[in-house]
Amino acid sequence: MAVKIDGKSISSELRLSIADEIKQLKQKNPGFEPRLTIIQVGDRPDSSVYVRMKLKSSEEVGIRGELLKFPADINQEELITEVERLNQDPSVHGILIQLPLPEHLDEPLITNKVIQSKDIDGFTNLNLASVFKKSDKPLYVPCTPKGILYLLDHEKVEISGKNVVVCGRSDIVGGPLSKLLEKRGGTVTVIHSRSTQAQKEFFCKNADILISAVGQVNFITGDIIKEGAVVIDVGTNYVPDATKKSGQRMCGDVDYASTEPKASLITPVPGGVGPMTVVMVLANVLESAKASLDSQSS
Amino acid sequence: MAVKIDGKSISSELRLSIADEIKQLKQKNPGFEPRLTIIQVGDRPDSSVYVRMKLKSSEEVGIRGELLKFPADINQEELITEVERLNQDPSVHGILIQLPLPEHLDEPLITNKVIQSKDIDGFTNLNLASVFKKSDKPLYVPCTPKGILYLLDHEKVEISGKNVVVCGRSDIVGGPLSKLLEKRGGTVTVIHSRSTQAQKEFFCKNADILISAVGQVNFITGDIIKEGAVVIDVGTNYVPDATKKSGQRMCGDVDYASTEPKASLITPVPGGVGPMTVVMVLANVLESAKASLDSQSS
Repeated sequence: MAVKIDGKSISSELRLSIADEIKQLKQKNPGFEPRLTIIQVGDRPDSSVYVRMKLKSSEEVGIRGELLKFPADINQEELITEVERLNQDPSVHGILIQLPLPEHLDEPLITNKVIQSKDIDGFTNLNLASVFKKSDKPLYVPCTPKGILYLLDHEKVEISGKNVVVCGRSDIVGGPLSKLLEKRGGTVTVIHSRSTQAQKEFFCKNADILISAVGQVNFITGDIIKEGAVVIDVGTNYVPDATKKSGQRMCGDVDYASTEPKASLITPVPGGVGPMTVVMVLANVLESAKASLDSQSS
Repeated sequence: MAVKIDGKSISSELRLSIADEIKQLKQKNPGFEPRLTIIQVGDRPDSSVYVRMKLKSSEEVGIRGELLKFPADINQEELITEVERLNQDPSVHGILIQLPLPEHLDEPLITNKVIQSKDIDGFTNLNLASVFKKSDKPLYVPCTPKGILYLLDHEKVEISGKNVVVCGRSDIVGGPLSKLLEKRGGTVTVIHSRSTQAQKEFFCKNADILISAVGQVNFITGDIIKEGAVVIDVGTNYVPDATKKSGQRMCGDVDYASTEPKASLITPVPGGVGPMTVVMVLANVLESAKASLDSQSS
């Protein structure tokens, strides 16, 4: 039976320690106030939920969170001007552009306008390059990969010398995560949509650490995992469930029932990786605010 | 017995076709002259050999090659000013900073000053980010990875759905190459200095395509490769050889004698990947010159 990695409680602890650090910094440095600005364009209900969650979490730890909301038909130049204004504003430490943006906007162009020192999502090309380069240390590790590394470290999982399989190669999760695990010494194989079923099974069955971030229910089942594997489930999927008021229930990529008995450690969904991502946004804002404080005092 | 991939002859053919294309473009567009500027700082003999080779190859295909040579003790600001001048000069299509730079110079800082449209080495962070991002197409693929992809395509090697192992994770070869092969559909595992011997053997024995870029003699031997594998040797090593005038002989990472009988395709060293790298510098300069021509005529 696997030990469940309790992301909810681990993230709560971390949140408390962030709140504590901010409180102490505020006491020592009058005027110190970490500040996160979120840009939301349009009214997607899912985006609004995420934005609210981030703002609420910010407040709870003593970060001043604010939302700049723009109409869905905002002109691209106007939006860029807003980003550049925030880049210049020394009181803003983190700029987060809630994705996806409406189709008429060039998403990579706009996200790349965020100045590196405030790119607490770690999505800009300059930051990603430093994730990927062997010799570089990124200023900000993207939040979901950062949360996963935190969980592995918290559970004292050795990465170096291990077979690591990352399922999924997105620019936000799978791509940077696989590189970060390689930098930590893992021998990493990336499974993706062009991998065959035989390849998926072969590599998963030999993985000491198996991370699934593809967004597909039951992508990982107990029969394809190695005895004693560490299993991290990044999936956020919804399946119909008549017993729930909403008529659906959230689940990950991993079939928990068949996988848990063979794994040594496993993250549940919900309550595993999810809560870590939000708290890493806060951690990155605090890092940025501290760097800004250091540069003022030096 | 493996078929030898003859990089020398494949690169010669490509060189001829580049020369031919440049000739035709010059005929159609009076004044068209692709131009490569190489910056060399100091006098390292190995660097001088590479620089001469690139200049000679440029001339042969109709690219105007020029060398800007600076003393080893050049001031960093001066060097950056030179790079910026070349960035602004519309007659220069490719800027190549010969590495390594002397220790007092910040190599990443300086190489990143090259404007993306002239970064024909593909080493700048902005270009590397586009190599790594799933959704992006790089403006210039770094020359050694580009040469390897060309060889694989020339030999009609299917990459999608195959097990690919890349040994080595440098920012110049292994890192970008593994990502480019993944983008082409390969299921890629990167073997590196922190991989154990058991991991190396396990993954190599299952590799349909095995690429070694670690710089270690006999890193790959026949006993750890799969029957029918495609073997690409990127190593450039020197071993003592009394029968040679220089007292040494060049060899790759792969023990050719034991590997060749089991492989389906294999690159020799010398005469495999090496000659491809130089011709890809020329290909990238031509691409840049054509882009510049297009932008003038549009």
